[in-house]
Amino acid sequence: MALIVQKYGGTSVGNPERIRNVAARVKKWHDEGNKIVVVVSAMSGVTDSLIKLAREVSGQPSEREMDVLLATGEQTTIALTAMALHSAGVKATSMTGAQAGIVTDGFHSKAKIQNITPKKVHAHLDAGEVVIVAGFQGQNNDGHITTLGRGGSDLTAIALAAALKADLCQIYTDVDGVYTCDPRIVKGAQKIHEISYDEMLEMASLGSKVMQSRSVEFAKKFGVIFEVRTSMGDQEGTIVKEETKNMEDVVIRGVSVDKNQIKVSVENLPDVPGIAAKLFRQLSDANINVDMIVQNNSRISDKSTDLTFTVSKEDEARATKAIEAFVLEHKVDSAEVRLGQKHEAAKVSVVGVGMRSHSGVAATMFEALAQEKINIQLISTSEIKISVIIDLKDADRAANIIHDKFGLTKK
Amino acid sequence: MALIVQKYGGTSVGNPERIRNVAARVKKWHDEGNKIVVVVSAMSGVTDSLIKLAREVSGQPSEREMDVLLATGEQTTIALTAMALHSAGVKATSMTGAQAGIVTDGFHSKAKIQNITPKKVHAHLDAGEVVIVAGFQGQNNDGHITTLGRGGSDLTAIALAAALKADLCQIYTDVDGVYTCDPRIVKGAQKIHEISYDEMLEMASLGSKVMQSRSVEFAKKFGVIFEVRTSMGDQEGTIVKEETKNMEDVVIRGVSVDKNQIKVSVENLPDVPGIAAKLFRQLSDANINVDMIVQNNSRISDKSTDLTFTVSKEDEARATKAIEAFVLEHKVDSAEVRLGQKHEAAKVSVVGVGMRSHSGVAATMFEALAQEKINIQLISTSEIKISVIIDLKDADRAANIIHDKFGLTKK
Repeated sequence: MALIVQKYGGTSVGNPERIRNVAARVKKWHDEGNKIVVVVSAMSGVTDSLIKLAREVSGQPSEREMDVLLATGEQTTIALTAMALHSAGVKATSMTGAQAGIVTDGFHSKAKIQNITPKKVHAHLDAGEVVIVAGFQGQNNDGHITTLGRGGSDLTAIALAAALKADLCQIYTDVDGVYTCDPRIVKGAQKIHEISYDEMLEMASLGSKVMQSRSVEFAKKFGVIFEVRTSMGDQEGTIVKEETKNMEDVVIRGVSVDKNQIKVSVENLPDVPGIAAKLFRQLSDANINVDMIVQNNSRISDKSTDLTFTVSKEDEARATKAIEAFVLEHKVDSAEVRLGQKHEAAKVSVVGVGMRSHSGVAATMFEALAQEKINIQLISTSEIKISVIIDLKDADRAANIIHDKFGLTKK
Repeated sequence: MALIVQKYGGTSVGNPERIRNVAARVKKWHDEGNKIVVVVSAMSGVTDSLIKLAREVSGQPSEREMDVLLATGEQTTIALTAMALHSAGVKATSMTGAQAGIVTDGFHSKAKIQNITPKKVHAHLDAGEVVIVAGFQGQNNDGHITTLGRGGSDLTAIALAAALKADLCQIYTDVDGVYTCDPRIVKGAQKIHEISYDEMLEMASLGSKVMQSRSVEFAKKFGVIFEVRTSMGDQEGTIVKEETKNMEDVVIRGVSVDKNQIKVSVENLPDVPGIAAKLFRQLSDANINVDMIVQNNSRISDKSTDLTFTVSKEDEARATKAIEAFVLEHKVDSAEVRLGQKHEAAKVSVVGVGMRSHSGVAATMFEALAQEKINIQLISTSEIKISVIIDLKDADRAANIIHDKFGLTKK
């Protein structure tokens, strides 16, 4: 008998029929003698409808009230899921985040979980009931309803698993695990059986959108082993856990492709200390996340320099505006400073803890790209990751050749 | 400066535009220096959609989970109303029933309010904020979400007004007050300026569906003066309060018409003690509310009797079934017992505390009906009410002549 926390996302509970399917799945695990806590998201589309409703009432809805509003989405799902379980003959009780003892700080719309007192959850589990907890929400110490922001339901599941000392945490989703690469890009991509927290974090931050980084970080911090698996079938998924010795036997765990990059240059910057800091402060103030940065060697002749960096496509307009403001400001000092060309680009990365013990990974990757005559524009590395920026049109070809070269492709 | 509790029903908050209208109305009262607590229902249609969703998931949803589900309706409205107030430049905070300190018993779907601890409501009011409370809901002592059943939002408003010692409680609705008769039946019906709790209770129980009896009873018990008024205009409505001396100056406060009556007879009952009790127990067990009852004098010759009574139209099928079962059972004792004819009927009533001090009210009413050759089939009276059952086709004519006869018709 195990205590299992299962999380079902919005698509998995998207309509009454799917909720009944979830109930059938939960019943199967429960009938096997396990204690089950189910964490659910709002039904797909519900959160968007609520946001639309709010915008019809107010141009700039307060975050506190937005939390009160959005929390109804998950509350609806917990009640319906409990009803579906009752219909399937399973005893079940629903709980809002507050009722489940989830206490957060007071940062509405992006609250952090501070602690969980799962006394009532335990009591219901001990009574043989399935407990269904609303994901994404909690309450702060003053009793105000809070929400956890993007990926909040995953976080609820992992935090509950930690607080309940669960044996397993299953994240049910519409993909059946983490793959060595996006199967839409690389036909021979394979499901990864086990992946370390750090690898999963790199994959998440590189645009493999299975889970938000913060949930993985939380799991890592509290040592919660979790499994990403599909709610549409019975296949085993991908286990995410602390790195083990044998994980290093594989050189590369996966290849990640992010096609939402814009490469921007700011040219002829006066080469004086602090100028780059000023530029990036301006971008940061505009809430723009700058990813890879390269500064060209200063040209001794004219004491100027070029900065090239990437931003994500959705930030392009705001980034351009911020850079133009910066350029205008610095025209006074230097007539030459200018916004260079902008290009749509792709970031292709290899990730794996095996890199620590295997040399030549970067060389292998670059050779593969050279063979295919794909030009590398920027490079960035971490201990377990190498990323390159290339032309958007080369992205798929690059991913396939790298995936092949590291022996990841299914035979 | 007064403390005012305002309640807005589902139609008044039925869409974003109407919610903004409510906000504008609240702002007006708030700007005049009043402390305002707003109680809102679910947006019209929302509760029905949620019930439909529940039925799609489960044939017989549990009442506890139904409460969790339905409570989201009002929670949605409080958030949207707070946002609309913010947009109008008014400080406002929303509160669920639980947050507002509304504690109920544990009878899910029809919970009774046990007590209200409005400390937090007071704190927000003292900070100059409008407080928006979700109607219809509370939590029990174990922290489970409960709902109050039909008319629950009115009850929330009146109970909050009592707990907060409010100066006034305004029930905003889609009618602009209580009328001397339904204006669709009697053209010259007039709005009643003041009405006593007891009169309002009689009107409510007689089918004048402005408010549920339980809310009026609660108001009476705690001496909460409230006003029924429209959310579509600025007219004053009807004040409901404890009886005052001058209320008796008016003989009749109003005429009530209920066209949903079915008159049924059970004939040739053996005239033995307890037989009527048996019949009505059987009806009561089938959850059928029997209204007026008349037993004919026993015929000495055959020691049998007839019982005639009314049930509401929606109970007709179930009542027939219950009576048929009763008849079948008693055929053994008496070959003659039988279900008599059923007729659609109307109940026309006059209500007024003035009856206590004015004699001849019944006579006047009966004479008026006699003049119009309307046959009275059953009569029932209370201290402040006289009801007659007549043919459905005579209902409107009867209401008009009685309304006229008692001088209620607008000149």
